Amino acid sequence: MKPEILLSTIIEFLGDEVKGFFGCPEGIIIKHLKAPNDVDEYTLDWVNPARTDKQFIAEQSKAKALLISTDIEYSAELQEQSKALIVVDNPKLAIAKVGNVFFVANKKNGIHGSVVINAAAKLGNNLFIGENSIIGDCIIGDKVIIYQNVVINDGVIIGNNVVIKPGAILGFEGFGYERTKNGELIKFPQLGRLIIEDNVEIGANTCIDKGSLSDTIIGYGTKINNLCHIAHNVIIGKNVIITAHVNISGSTIIEDNVWIAPNSSLIGHQSIGENATIGMGAVVIKDVPARETWVGNPAKKLNK
Amino acid sequence: MKPEILLSTIIEFLGDEVKGFFGCPEGIIIKHLKAPNDVDEYTLDWVNPARTDKQFIAEQSKAKALLISTDIEYSAELQEQSKALIVVDNPKLAIAKVGNVFFVANKKNGIHGSVVINAAAKLGNNLFIGENSIIGDCIIGDKVIIYQNVVINDGVIIGNNVVIKPGAILGFEGFGYERTKNGELIKFPQLGRLIIEDNVEIGANTCIDKGSLSDTIIGYGTKINNLCHIAHNVIIGKNVIITAHVNISGSTIIEDNVWIAPNSSLIGHQSIGENATIGMGAVVIKDVPARETWVGNPAKKLNK
Amino acid sequence: MKPEILLSTIIEFLGDEVKGFFGCPEGIIIKHLKAPNDVDEYTLDWVNPARTDKQFIAEQSKAKALLISTDIEYSAELQEQSKALIVVDNPKLAIAKVGNVFFVANKKNGIHGSVVINAAAKLGNNLFIGENSIIGDCIIGDKVIIYQNVVINDGVIIGNNVVIKPGAILGFEGFGYERTKNGELIKFPQLGRLIIEDNVEIGANTCIDKGSLSDTIIGYGTKINNLCHIAHNVIIGKNVIITAHVNISGSTIIEDNVWIAPNSSLIGHQSIGENATIGMGAVVIKDVPARETWVGNPAKKLNK
Repeated sequence: MKPEILLSTIIEFLGDEVKGFFGCPEGIIIKHLKAPNDVDEYTLDWVNPARTDKQFIAEQSKAKALLISTDIEYSAELQEQSKALIVVDNPKLAIAKVGNVFFVANKKNGIHGSVVINAAAKLGNNLFIGENSIIGDCIIGDKVIIYQNVVINDGVIIGNNVVIKPGAILGFEGFGYERTKNGELIKFPQLGRLIIEDNVEIGANTCIDKGSLSDTIIGYGTKINNLCHIAHNVIIGKNVIITAHVNISGSTIIEDNVWIAPNSSLIGHQSIGENATIGMGAVVIKDVPARETWVGNPAKKLNK
Repeated sequence: MKPEILLSTIIEFLGDEVKGFFGCPEGIIIKHLKAPNDVDEYTLDWVNPARTDKQFIAEQSKAKALLISTDIEYSAELQEQSKALIVVDNPKLAIAKVGNVFFVANKKNGIHGSVVINAAAKLGNNLFIGENSIIGDCIIGDKVIIYQNVVINDGVIIGNNVVIKPGAILGFEGFGYERTKNGELIKFPQLGRLIIEDNVEIGANTCIDKGSLSDTIIGYGTKINNLCHIAHNVIIGKNVIITAHVNISGSTIIEDNVWIAPNSSLIGHQSIGENATIGMGAVVIKDVPARETWVGNPAKKLNK
Repeated sequence: MKPEILLSTIIEFLGDEVKGFFGCPEGIIIKHLKAPNDVDEYTLDWVNPARTDKQFIAEQSKAKALLISTDIEYSAELQEQSKALIVVDNPKLAIAKVGNVFFVANKKNGIHGSVVINAAAKLGNNLFIGENSIIGDCIIGDKVIIYQNVVINDGVIIGNNVVIKPGAILGFEGFGYERTKNGELIKFPQLGRLIIEDNVEIGANTCIDKGSLSDTIIGYGTKINNLCHIAHNVIIGKNVIITAHVNISGSTIIEDNVWIAPNSSLIGHQSIGENATIGMGAVVIKDVPARETWVGNPAKKLNK
């Protein structure tokens, strides 16, 4: 059963975000969101405000209803097509909110019978835990989604509304060795914890180590993509974006709202200032000041 | 029980690929393929046509039987040793075909008792599915090998003769967020599918995301190695080689026969033309034209 | 129950490593190791000999007992605080040894009921094998720790005292293809073994392929971190450090005591000489001589 939603219901849901209208939403039915090439009369379409040809995009769309920014005119062309335009500050954000509420199926709560949970673990309410995941002696908040084949070690603390994708490995010993005179490698004790705050998302097959003598901390709202490695004692702030294949070495500090592009590497014991951007494949071997963009190998400040 | 195969049986199997002979294959028994240092009288050896010392390699081999290219002479030395030489266009390709048929054990069909399969999944015939793999509501063709601990989400479509190695994670939500004014990150809906065409191989612990509003597509015959990340809406053509640790960001288009070396990164929304080569560790931030080789950080065209 | 250990017991354990004392260890109780900011009177603290301000660090520490190197003086300040100082050659190594014996909980032996073991596998004594791991027809030595969700293929040989972290995939087919004239990719046979010597550690979600016609070998005491890819026929020497996200292509030879920083890539069929260092994100496309440090893309010798 595909949904059929009245455009007026969507407008009601968006509430204060709606800054104005053109045309008449009455009787328009929305069945889906679609990529530009697949838009049809039942699509809720949107126009990216960053595009220079946005007026043209709105006029060419096959949709009857579009979310637009304030700088599109209700031209003769648009009027003739009787399109319904809903003006919002950020059309992409509005489409995301609409999509999440009306078109994304909610994960049902439940813990699969194959899940192994340590008897001492403290679990919150409304959890989803997928097949074959293994939960050690740890603390998990409410409304957490743990997908399949995830392994969470003893001593991990997880907040509310956290999403952990399949195959993630959380809270195991970090990689620290000291060489003896004859070359043998002796492991440095790894006795700290891993703390994951509310609203964090952790990607598939990503590995986050616990701290050695202090803790590893992933801050509120931070999103981490697939196949990342985050080493012991790393401290990550709020609402940071860490894309796929990123490597963060031990004791690195990453401040709020930083954006780290794919496959970049951060050397240990350095800090990345708030709102900084690290470019794709960047090899960062120094502190990065707030709000700067660094790229290259070795990474240097990008002067735009 | 190790195999014992008559050289004449192997020649018969190669059929039209055999362009000629030197010496006499009669009575020669082949027991194995071996690396150069371990070759013995029961080895079917081969000479790489790219080597400048190929005549010398043929003469020094301890094998009685060799696959060679047309440019090796049946020298006095080779005649004296009574070696049997089988002339083919591509000795490495011929040895691969012989090895796959006579020396590689076939995976037996069967689905392990620990596998969890969604009741709505549509499965083809002659499947192997290894321990602890989890199969969502998806469509899987014939003669597919799914190794252990693989997780396949709902909505994935897999063709025939596909091989999926252990720990691969297929068809989960991509990594797309939009920031609100107060810095919170809202997920962009991920509603597309992942389509994997016939004869594809996917490496261990590799992650391939489903599309956001369109689909992610892996084309016919493409081979992907371990620990790769392929993001939402990526479209990959036919017979592409993607080696280990490659990172392909969202909406990238990769045309047929491209070769991507390890640990390279492709920025999103760009295209790589057919038969192009991306070098090891390349950081590709532009479109790459067909047949060109790009290397470096940032990647540039290599002028050979 | 947290441990309470007499400092005199720790001194006895360190034995010959203790080169001298200052102050009086009598009656001092040690309860834990701590990161610098969290040190208290029950901490066994230590001073890194590489720090230029080490005298100051010793004097400011809130601990009663410290492991120090020979170049710290028992100053009036330290005497006044009645601190107990234990002189050793390498304080970090000494703290590691103390931590491992007195503060790290030992893994208890045992094989979880969910583990699947091939009937032909030969297993040593005193093993730990975690939930959902899958053990093929292979040989495993004594005192091996195999964490959760590990997959070990048929034909792998593992020595004593090996640690394999969660999600590692060991001994599957390497990535070798030969193209036919019409562009199809034919797999080259992968018939070799994977041999892991004593005292090796393998990181979470790391993948190590078996050999094609020869073997892949991981030498004694080598430590490999998370998310690494080690291809077919690679030969690694003793006590090598391979950090996270490292990519080692086929037939590479790595000699003893090499140090490979995160996210670096080694092209195939080359060698890295003993005691060499490969920098973070380095893209190594040539042989690296012994004792040299190479960095960059492409990697070049670093002249310090």
